[in-house]
Amino acid sequence: MATYRLGVMYGDGIGPEVVQAAVEVLTTAAERLGTVKFNWVELPMGLSAIEKYGEAFPDITKKALKNCDGWILGPNDGAAYAKEHQGKRTPSGELRHSYDLYANIRPSKTLPGIRNVVGEADLVIVRENTEGFYTDKNMYVGNGEFMVTPETALSVGVFTKPAIERIAHAAFRFAMERRQHVTIVHKANVIKLGFGLFIKTCREVAEQYPQVKVDDYHVDAFAAQLVRRAGDFDVIVTENMFGDILSDLAAELVGGLGLAYSINASENQAMAQAVHGSAPDIAGKNVANPVGEMLSAVMLIDWLGTRHQDQSLHHLGQLVKTSILKALFDGVRTQDLGGDASTIQFTEAVVQRILRS
Amino acid sequence: MATYRLGVMYGDGIGPEVVQAAVEVLTTAAERLGTVKFNWVELPMGLSAIEKYGEAFPDITKKALKNCDGWILGPNDGAAYAKEHQGKRTPSGELRHSYDLYANIRPSKTLPGIRNVVGEADLVIVRENTEGFYTDKNMYVGNGEFMVTPETALSVGVFTKPAIERIAHAAFRFAMERRQHVTIVHKANVIKLGFGLFIKTCREVAEQYPQVKVDDYHVDAFAAQLVRRAGDFDVIVTENMFGDILSDLAAELVGGLGLAYSINASENQAMAQAVHGSAPDIAGKNVANPVGEMLSAVMLIDWLGTRHQDQSLHHLGQLVKTSILKALFDGVRTQDLGGDASTIQFTEAVVQRILRS
Ligand SMILES: CC(C)[C@H](C(=O)O)[C@@H](O)C(=O)O
Ligand SMILES: CC(C)[C@H](C(=O)O)[C@@H](O)C(=O)O
Repeated sequence: MATYRLGVMYGDGIGPEVVQAAVEVLTTAAERLGTVKFNWVELPMGLSAIEKYGEAFPDITKKALKNCDGWILGPNDGAAYAKEHQGKRTPSGELRHSYDLYANIRPSKTLPGIRNVVGEADLVIVRENTEGFYTDKNMYVGNGEFMVTPETALSVGVFTKPAIERIAHAAFRFAMERRQHVTIVHKANVIKLGFGLFIKTCREVAEQYPQVKVDDYHVDAFAAQLVRRAGDFDVIVTENMFGDILSDLAAELVGGLGLAYSINASENQAMAQAVHGSAPDIAGKNVANPVGEMLSAVMLIDWLGTRHQDQSLHHLGQLVKTSILKALFDGVRTQDLGGDASTIQFTEAVVQRILRS
Repeated sequence: MATYRLGVMYGDGIGPEVVQAAVEVLTTAAERLGTVKFNWVELPMGLSAIEKYGEAFPDITKKALKNCDGWILGPNDGAAYAKEHQGKRTPSGELRHSYDLYANIRPSKTLPGIRNVVGEADLVIVRENTEGFYTDKNMYVGNGEFMVTPETALSVGVFTKPAIERIAHAAFRFAMERRQHVTIVHKANVIKLGFGLFIKTCREVAEQYPQVKVDDYHVDAFAAQLVRRAGDFDVIVTENMFGDILSDLAAELVGGLGLAYSINASENQAMAQAVHGSAPDIAGKNVANPVGEMLSAVMLIDWLGTRHQDQSLHHLGQLVKTSILKALFDGVRTQDLGGDASTIQFTEAVVQRILRS
């Protein structure tokens, strides 16, 4: 029986609760199916790691990650880092950067029974994760920002052809497995060189996928189009900051940030990460919605299934996903979705549906 | 009787039709009230100006603008400039830049009878118009972009304290006349220096307006909040590119881009400009929605009323606005709003309501 080592980083705020929930449903499914085994490796990360190791992302974690097949990441409390660790990356940024997890893949799909404001939609935002306007990701130009006088800040956006090429390939490969439609989102009417290079490179890559329909939009118009006709889009490829904004927008349009999921991936490494934050105000209260983290973990399992050509992983992912959707459809919901289930009750409902299936 | 000279630049695509409509309703209102007179000065601008004067924004227009009290600008066909005049600013960008029209003020308000996706909302986005990530606006660092190798573009965002100060004052002054609430939108968790300066400066300015409630959001979270509870926001102050994205988003959420209006203003100059583009596909077909351009013109009239302490201008603006809303409420609508009125029919409907009032 194939065994996979999965690194688990709980993170801050509601992190421990939702990550624990994700681990539980995957474990249940593995036991239920008996075709795969997971070895869980708990790795210190976040504010609690600072207390214990002096660092949010300690060396012990960095080393251990290398021996894991995949990683599950809980949210970070950005505000706490901003106050107490100014100028430092949060572990999330550090992980994406150090391991060159260049593709942040964020699906948004309306779910049966969940209120949405846009009608049916099923799209994926493929966000470039290493450059663009995210100055903190660019080691090679310092941290990408400079105070040139006490009253003038320069924030340097970086666009490089190799980085655009690989994210474009990721988007087109994805589209080939879906509805064969890629939308390039940019602002080339203003950022002429940066997004000029972005579009040109994406269009060059497109030539290798002649079956895929390609269109492009300015980011401002695209935000409006998402509201107007989200259902018309399939795969969207865009720069780091635009991807950040548009994926939160898309998530809210289809049902709320608590449901939104993602992986950060390179060719040979992937990390599950919910789109929501650490919500310190509701931490430890057993009310957080674990769906985003659960679905992110499922997406990681699918990625591993493809990478290791292991069908049993795909089956397992499918079982967990169906069980989550069933629980939601049956009206078991946390309070952010208007329900009254606790985190533990919702998790238990998913577990029951996995066992019963 | 006070007389105002208003410069009119028709622009491209549907520009001539919608600008003409705006001129017509203002003229009708002036005649109806008999308290103000407008002298209309038609100024060449746009693709037609290129044919006639070799330039989209010719010297003759630049000179004449100085002698006008206010300007009404039609849309530009960005795609045409990108193809045929690569690297040049469109007149719209050039106007904002050369005349230092630093505040782009974009209201979004749900209208009685018009479908919206967010419930009632009444907010104003105050967008910094001269710097931030809009590299083409920054003369002093070249055009703000550099190809450092054929495969690497640097796009330099610029944040300066004086520019942030004046846009913050514009936002807080506005809030004082409204619901005394300013929301700062930024991405200081990633763009630490640029948006660090932005927040710090806004918060300093806030101290001069102790009655105003201030909060702030990361731009990604804010995009989701706008969908979730647009009604909770009043005045939003933000950087150029974020303002561009969020104002299109807000416009679509409250009823569509065809209705969205704005002015670009400095202390002593203002220009009306609809938020929509030039829509070349429907140009000359008498189907464009003139409401965005009409409401932008009304906003300019209001601005002039305040600047010249002329109540009759405020009355006139009120009359035109009410008549537009009445026509919409009565179901007279262009096709983008699901109606079948032509541009001319809609304009005529507003004219009738002005005359009958
Ligand atoms: C916390 C923040 C730095 C992060 C980002 O902007 O990348 C988050 O918003 C995300 O999208 O994962
Ligand atoms: C046409 C374009 C350059 C312009 C901008 O981005 O400023 C437009 O989108 C706007 O918002 O007025």
